[in-house]
Amino acid sequence: MALQRGPSPWEVSLWTRREESLPAISAALPGCRVSCDLKIAVEGADLIVLCTSPRAIENSGGELAGLIPASTPVTDAGSVKVRIVAALEGALGGRFIGAHPMAGSEQSGISAARPDLFDGAVCILTPTPNSDPQALAAVRDFWKEAGCRVSEMSPASHDMAVARISHLPHAVAAALVQAALSKNPEVAALAGSGYRDTTRIAIGPEALWREIFLDNRDALLSAISDMQTHVEKLKTAISGGDEAAIEAFLREARNLRAQGNE
Amino acid sequence: MALQRGPSPWEVSLWTRREESLPAISAALPGCRVSCDLKIAVEGADLIVLCTSPRAIENSGGELAGLIPASTPVTDAGSVKVRIVAALEGALGGRFIGAHPMAGSEQSGISAARPDLFDGAVCILTPTPNSDPQALAAVRDFWKEAGCRVSEMSPASHDMAVARISHLPHAVAAALVQAALSKNPEVAALAGSGYRDTTRIAIGPEALWREIFLDNRDALLSAISDMQTHVEKLKTAISGGDEAAIEAFLREARNLRAQGNE
Repeated sequence: MALQRGPSPWEVSLWTRREESLPAISAALPGCRVSCDLKIAVEGADLIVLCTSPRAIENSGGELAGLIPASTPVTDAGSVKVRIVAALEGALGGRFIGAHPMAGSEQSGISAARPDLFDGAVCILTPTPNSDPQALAAVRDFWKEAGCRVSEMSPASHDMAVARISHLPHAVAAALVQAALSKNPEVAALAGSGYRDTTRIAIGPEALWREIFLDNRDALLSAISDMQTHVEKLKTAISGGDEAAIEAFLREARNLRAQGNE
Repeated sequence: MALQRGPSPWEVSLWTRREESLPAISAALPGCRVSCDLKIAVEGADLIVLCTSPRAIENSGGELAGLIPASTPVTDAGSVKVRIVAALEGALGGRFIGAHPMAGSEQSGISAARPDLFDGAVCILTPTPNSDPQALAAVRDFWKEAGCRVSEMSPASHDMAVARISHLPHAVAAALVQAALSKNPEVAALAGSGYRDTTRIAIGPEALWREIFLDNRDALLSAISDMQTHVEKLKTAISGGDEAAIEAFLREARNLRAQGNE
């Protein structure tokens, strides 16, 4: 949708796993080629974008390599990069350029598609010393064309950063829902926008997030340990009735949060 | 603003603490009486609504009692109810009816006012055996007129419920900001809507939230302990690579969250 907005719309071809998804995709993206047959979907492509779950992306390199010319650039939209980049560089070489657009919602499937989903979102590219410069340039252009602001870092730096800015918030939102509602689910009826916003992402698909959590296990565990330290610090301040410590904790959070503000 | 939308707008009189706020309030609410003198603000009122911080509400009963007729109903908008209701019933008797509209944002001041702020929000009233039935009816009508759906529970039940559905999310959002950004604030530049939504309320005013946390200390500490239990459970599942346990945790959270959905 994003690529078909401009004066010279891209020619888009989609692969989908399930036959029953084909009519909705064709209806949402008129003029696009849609198929459950990977060979048909990738035929003639100048650029391939892998948008399945992390494990499916990791395992797709071998089949893909047999279907496309040796120089076709390939990128992806997976949330964890060290494992994906290692697997795909292994299967496809330097024309694979890992990417992670920091966009999306708790929803999934074609019904969640929006032409402006990527507008202004950061897309992190994770080139390595093996990366082919022409493939990198093509992939950079692709994500810019979709609406993203492109930045680059190593796969390892990416995984450490998103453990804190993306995967930790998801883990915390899931734990918060349970702490808020497990003992008395009826309090959900009293929820205001504070609870709703802090927990919205906990509606995301659990099979996808299970893969993400395990693919980024070490960095996420480190982030969760820091979360535990900060929660304990606040709990100690509240328990001790320490007005100055509580206020300092909340002030520090407010100041840090202002940096990430829209 | 909400009370002046209908066919028969209410006559509204406002008290504000700071002289310098008067011009902005008068501009935002034309036709309303505005004063820093409590005696002028409450003169002739049929109903009084206390909207300051919890401690200021608790301490306002004595002065207010000397300025208004003995039968004037009084309500409030404080986030914690046991302490406020005890203090205000002591000073004003059964015509004080505690209330907590579950609406608002991380913003404060007259610039955050919106005519539709209360539309559809739950307003919890906390009458007690001491409550005057006529005052309760008047206060119920007032919050309905502002746009709220009114529900009732005891002050103690209210405080336990909001510890989990409102105060815990605030504490968790503040701790999450620190865990996400303390070690490397630059990752804020990569934030997507997940981080932004889960941490938005951490921008709220720390002096107000320090009062709320301490006024509801025991119930909040219990909720924080449950949060710690759930975080530790998820951490153990991730650490052990237990796919089934991670997915079950996230599924449980998704199912619980669906109950509180808009």
